[in-house]
Amino acid sequence: MQKLHVIKIGGNVIDNSENLHRFLKDFTALEGYKILIHGGGKVATLVSESMGVEAHMVDGRRITDIDTLRIVTMVYAGLINKNVVAQLQHYGTNAIGLTGADGDFIRAKKRPVKTIDYGFVGDISDNSINPENISKLLEAGFTPVFCALTHDGEGQLLNTNADTIASALAVALSKLYETTLVYCFEKKGVLHDINDDDSLIRDINPERYDQLKADKIIHSGMLPKMDNAFTAIACGVRAVIIGHSDDLGQLKGGHSFGTRLSN
Amino acid sequence: MQKLHVIKIGGNVIDNSENLHRFLKDFTALEGYKILIHGGGKVATLVSESMGVEAHMVDGRRITDIDTLRIVTMVYAGLINKNVVAQLQHYGTNAIGLTGADGDFIRAKKRPVKTIDYGFVGDISDNSINPENISKLLEAGFTPVFCALTHDGEGQLLNTNADTIASALAVALSKLYETTLVYCFEKKGVLHDINDDDSLIRDINPERYDQLKADKIIHSGMLPKMDNAFTAIACGVRAVIIGHSDDLGQLKGGHSFGTRLSN
Repeated sequence: MQKLHVIKIGGNVIDNSENLHRFLKDFTALEGYKILIHGGGKVATLVSESMGVEAHMVDGRRITDIDTLRIVTMVYAGLINKNVVAQLQHYGTNAIGLTGADGDFIRAKKRPVKTIDYGFVGDISDNSINPENISKLLEAGFTPVFCALTHDGEGQLLNTNADTIASALAVALSKLYETTLVYCFEKKGVLHDINDDDSLIRDINPERYDQLKADKIIHSGMLPKMDNAFTAIACGVRAVIIGHSDDLGQLKGGHSFGTRLSN
Repeated sequence: MQKLHVIKIGGNVIDNSENLHRFLKDFTALEGYKILIHGGGKVATLVSESMGVEAHMVDGRRITDIDTLRIVTMVYAGLINKNVVAQLQHYGTNAIGLTGADGDFIRAKKRPVKTIDYGFVGDISDNSINPENISKLLEAGFTPVFCALTHDGEGQLLNTNADTIASALAVALSKLYETTLVYCFEKKGVLHDINDDDSLIRDINPERYDQLKADKIIHSGMLPKMDNAFTAIACGVRAVIIGHSDDLGQLKGGHSFGTRLSN
């Protein structure tokens, strides 16, 4: 099986031109098949404000009404995605910028209205992604760059969490490739002491994870991220790396960086 | 050689939801390889206005300053392109939405500043398009949908005329496919009497074209379009069709519609 890296970046890379360029250079230097997924960053908020579209929140959750969907389609799929693609081309990666609608790569279902109507938000399921279809692009020499949009197959674009897309892509493609899922965020990785970058925990397996939870070293916001990572591993992903985008360059030559989760 | 249709639509399709849906259905029904190129329509102007970005004109020509480039990137590559792709998926076309930066498909050079600085406008040349690269997508079963953006290979997106992109794609791909270039616009085709849709001229070859120019039946705004079409034919394109988007359905089964230009 050939190797594939599925790498997700968020606001700390997208919003900072210096971080972004360093990351895209390191991404280009990484050997083998790779897929990039990017979140939205602050640009969507800035564009919304300049167009007078107010963020609509219910119980602290952002609602994707039709105006917000239009803005995220413009910002995620247009402004951010195509500038990332143009920069990657400059560095030598033959990138293609995509939503889940392109190539029918990622289908989602509009979230059903229960107590909250989230609007145009799409949830993905086990059969949302056809790995053979995406594989055609990889085999033809292209590097897919996904933004956080999917579609319902009936003409409707949907806003979908970028972490979830990254995980679903990695799981689906692990049937065809030896897949490593990489989450880049603003910390060095999972830390013993959140204020001490030198306290990085390099490797976590399910047993160690149980211990770290019991010791309250991993808690609150990190728990869903970690749970999702171990679910991806249980579904066929070889390893999940959580670390800082600045350290991606360390992946070259089969090394790791940040915190590596595996069985 | 397999057949390929390169089809360009403009504002009269993009801005009218009914026209657009009929067109996308007919586009889906068309057999063989196909590529769609779309212009911008009125949406870019509406978004510019709502963001308080004023159109910057010099000598009646629109200037693409950095704010305008951001808006067309959002509207052309995001809002319009991805909604067209989602609708095409709904109708059964496995579309992929692209700029010229994606896949390095269309490179352009920023227009040099002479008397006017057009800003971030890209001109394309004979070697701007690598047909083998685009052919990989077609052969893999995808239908490319291009918006009117290119890149310079150094990380910069550029605004490029959609008619020019369509023509350049058709010429480059005519090396690999028997290519017909189709310009959809708001008229039935080239008319003897511009106020009479029944006066459609069905076929024009270079000799007939000279005669129609001498008789002042073709003049002013149509001349550059026709000249470009005959240049494309001289460079290998089998035929150029100029007609109304509503009539695209007539192309099925090897028929033609509108005005057909050929040698």
